[in-house]
Amino acid sequence: MAETRKAEEIFKEFKEHSIAEFFKKNRQMLGYSGKIRSLVTVVHELVTNSLDACEEAGMLPNIEVKIKQIGEEKYSIAVLDNGPGIPKNYVGKALAVILAGTKFHRYVQQRGQQGIGAAGCTLFSQITTGKQMFVKSSTGAGKAYSCNVSIDTVHNKPIVSNLQDISENFRGLDVEGEFADVKYENSDHGVYEYLRRTALSNPHAEIRFTDPEGKESTFVRAAQTMPERPKPTKPHPLGLAVNDILEYAHRTESRKLGAFLVENFSRVTPNKVAELKEFAKNVDFEKDPHTLTWSDAEELIKAFNSVKWISPDGTQIKPIGEEQIKVALKNILDPEFMSVVERKPAVFKGGIPFIVEAAVAFGGTAGKKTDEGYSGTILRFANRVPLLFDSGSCAITVGARDIQWKRYSMDLETQPISVLVNVSSVHIPYSGVGKESIAQEEEIVDEIKLAVMEAARGVQRYVSGKLRLHNEENRYKTIMRYTKQLAQDLSEITGKDRKVLEKEIEKLVAKHYPKVMEHENGPDEGKRGKEESDAEDPDE
Amino acid sequence: MAETRKAEEIFKEFKEHSIAEFFKKNRQMLGYSGKIRSLVTVVHELVTNSLDACEEAGMLPNIEVKIKQIGEEKYSIAVLDNGPGIPKNYVGKALAVILAGTKFHRYVQQRGQQGIGAAGCTLFSQITTGKQMFVKSSTGAGKAYSCNVSIDTVHNKPIVSNLQDISENFRGLDVEGEFADVKYENSDHGVYEYLRRTALSNPHAEIRFTDPEGKESTFVRAAQTMPERPKPTKPHPLGLAVNDILEYAHRTESRKLGAFLVENFSRVTPNKVAELKEFAKNVDFEKDPHTLTWSDAEELIKAFNSVKWISPDGTQIKPIGEEQIKVALKNILDPEFMSVVERKPAVFKGGIPFIVEAAVAFGGTAGKKTDEGYSGTILRFANRVPLLFDSGSCAITVGARDIQWKRYSMDLETQPISVLVNVSSVHIPYSGVGKESIAQEEEIVDEIKLAVMEAARGVQRYVSGKLRLHNEENRYKTIMRYTKQLAQDLSEITGKDRKVLEKEIEKLVAKHYPKVMEHENGPDEGKRGKEESDAEDPDE
Repeated sequence: MAETRKAEEIFKEFKEHSIAEFFKKNRQMLGYSGKIRSLVTVVHELVTNSLDACEEAGMLPNIEVKIKQIGEEKYSIAVLDNGPGIPKNYVGKALAVILAGTKFHRYVQQRGQQGIGAAGCTLFSQITTGKQMFVKSSTGAGKAYSCNVSIDTVHNKPIVSNLQDISENFRGLDVEGEFADVKYENSDHGVYEYLRRTALSNPHAEIRFTDPEGKESTFVRAAQTMPERPKPTKPHPLGLAVNDILEYAHRTESRKLGAFLVENFSRVTPNKVAELKEFAKNVDFEKDPHTLTWSDAEELIKAFNSVKWISPDGTQIKPIGEEQIKVALKNILDPEFMSVVERKPAVFKGGIPFIVEAAVAFGGTAGKKTDEGYSGTILRFANRVPLLFDSGSCAITVGARDIQWKRYSMDLETQPISVLVNVSSVHIPYSGVGKESIAQEEEIVDEIKLAVMEAARGVQRYVSGKLRLHNEENRYKTIMRYTKQLAQDLSEITGKDRKVLEKEIEKLVAKHYPKVMEHENGPDEGKRGKEESDAEDPDE
Repeated sequence: MAETRKAEEIFKEFKEHSIAEFFKKNRQMLGYSGKIRSLVTVVHELVTNSLDACEEAGMLPNIEVKIKQIGEEKYSIAVLDNGPGIPKNYVGKALAVILAGTKFHRYVQQRGQQGIGAAGCTLFSQITTGKQMFVKSSTGAGKAYSCNVSIDTVHNKPIVSNLQDISENFRGLDVEGEFADVKYENSDHGVYEYLRRTALSNPHAEIRFTDPEGKESTFVRAAQTMPERPKPTKPHPLGLAVNDILEYAHRTESRKLGAFLVENFSRVTPNKVAELKEFAKNVDFEKDPHTLTWSDAEELIKAFNSVKWISPDGTQIKPIGEEQIKVALKNILDPEFMSVVERKPAVFKGGIPFIVEAAVAFGGTAGKKTDEGYSGTILRFANRVPLLFDSGSCAITVGARDIQWKRYSMDLETQPISVLVNVSSVHIPYSGVGKESIAQEEEIVDEIKLAVMEAARGVQRYVSGKLRLHNEENRYKTIMRYTKQLAQDLSEITGKDRKVLEKEIEKLVAKHYPKVMEHENGPDEGKRGKEESDAEDPDE
């Protein structure tokens, strides 16, 4: 038996660590595991921040990403934007403190929501190269400055150095850093693909990219209008938990419970309050919300679940949009058929509204070519940010794979199918800090399934139509093989001309296979084209 | 175009949040997503802590888990142990501050390593039920106390109340809490299965479980000896990054670089230092390690990678052990064949040593019965803790699926195969804070693959032997069908007795199929049994 030790002795080894120390020791949790993924994570965090900043400022984003190799598995990465910039006094907090730049107390749809991403890049740079990040920014004329930032990880505090005003006529933000233990690769999980998908889901952005070989690519702006800036929304009564209500109640400035409910939650009107009173008989709706108890709130929740509600307000959630998804899929996959679906807003835990969009594309360059033929692919997005990693346990993957594809005459394992899903919300429940996959919240998985099923149904009739046509063509050809012999036989019996009979039989057969004829005749091509273009969204 | 906003205005909305607030908003990152999973997460965190505490104190653990349903989707969970207890003055820090009870500055193998788990339970309880956790503990005679704890999430500080000394003769720790938004289910992902697998990988523990229906189960102690308490180890020079060396250098008490290297890193001897000098010519090995520069360290890393090293020291990493894995698999799966492999210690990023164990079991109740037949299953463990969720992107799943099972005459998709993998290390690189999957670090995935391949090879000869026997039996039967006719024909030609001839022919055929005969004859059964038992580990 090993020696025994006392608790007092053991607990002496306890230490309190800063969150920065924690992530320094566990950088894989921020997405910094694997060389290729680590490099994409840096680009992902910085580009996401740029898009958010431009959107918040109401500006059409011009983003530039430059990657240079500067050593073995060592690269410099620069991300520039034309956004609002960072005020000088905030630069340390925004880029070099973990959890300082958070905006998660607000109820607004944004790509970044944690206040970890940018500081994570700074941390990763200093761990792997010992360098500070270089920042150049300006929030307006005459306000340009540059500096270096890094994190004092022991205390999770920013270190800003070389801060100087510069005369350069610069507007926006330029963040540059050096990173080691990374690798650039042109693959499905590489930076180019990440930016391509970002452009796809953010048509209002112009993204320029210079890869390590000096090759320049531009993803041009496809939409000239700025998407409306998402404004804060209120949580919907459905999905709220006791604790949620209490938190709002303890923070409110309302003096009475009834008014508090109307002010803080979506779809609650004075009329609704009257209705709620019927179900929460023990709750005093005149009481000060600050004195709300757990059991009061519990009764309110029950009442919430007993009355009818208008579905949640989705006006402040901005999905990609059906039209844009169609244009984008047409451009990149040129599928034979596609169907795009945007679901109505729904809520999950905490009364948080979200919207799911899904598209199913068949044929063209959809899916992925394999040695044996094809396999389906799933393009995942959260608040228009492409998710490239950790697909296995993501709600999108699970939802899309879980539907019975056979019912829709399709097979995700063997056919050229691409499924696109975008989940938009004021708060995406990411399963990890690295934000590469969405947690399997029941309501979200359900909505994803419904959206994908609806999109699959839209494609089904064309896929099964295609299958039917294929079968009919085979049957038609089989019959036609006998027409010559039949005409010959009939001619001998009836004395009529063989050629005339053959033509007549052919006409007769053709009449029974109108689709096949339509498909084979050139002149109808135009019509078919029209049909297919309608086919893209039969539910419209 | 939307209105534009200035940076100054935008950044006013920035707020600094405590890590407790962050996880309150993102509890899914701690494993609290989904009702069934959330319940298992509570048990997982508390049991893990109990096992660690007992092990650190050098005591054989007796653990008791009691779950009661107390409302709709509302349960009370109690976990009791006979361990060293928590000193009164540490109880708040240990159970109600996130990142306070960390031991990750030490280089010791432990199940918990983050200082998040237990506090996460407390947080989850207060979010879902508004209740505090109840704690009863004693670190020795006359030191028993009880109290309630919760977290002040805004400041991430503990709230301890009702603290009182109790006269009860209690030793160890008793943590109880109420949790809502959870569900007990008896499935592959439920508490019973979690405890069963915990018992499997911790044979020195006795675990008693009372489920919500009052049914009691005991997983008895299978090994009476306490596994040796893991002691701190040193990182191996291979796998170290520049930043790692600098951190050690800045913390050391050594005065000279050479001595510093010998003292801080595994396998570095004065002789090795002499060798390293040959490769790091620009580095002054007499210098004060506190003055070590980034480029010095860079040169050292290159030198580390240029000399030969003894493989890392694995003595302080405690795997489950081949014998124990065999016994456990025999008990729960009773497979026809199995093979268990323990790899030599390897290192990954940061010079962190780790050991992979793998087992492949075939037949019996291995794998999972499906409508179409069977499918293989993967049992994942990290430091002997069963991992039940997030299997998709786990290094174990990826590694085990990535090998070419056909080469080993097996098919993981359709056969009754169970693969067990346990990764042991002083620092497991979990991909998330919820610690349910291991990040895909290259070195770890490689070791997992090698271990599974080796175990598969061990089973292969028996599986292919079984296949061969099956084929031979078929051929034997086919031939035997003709013996009667052949004997008849020969008898007519030669005049010999038909029955005599038939017997002779049968003997002749049997001689060519010795394996088939052995398999069909009762008397040899014993021998076959013996062979199969050897078969369990052909590499022994």
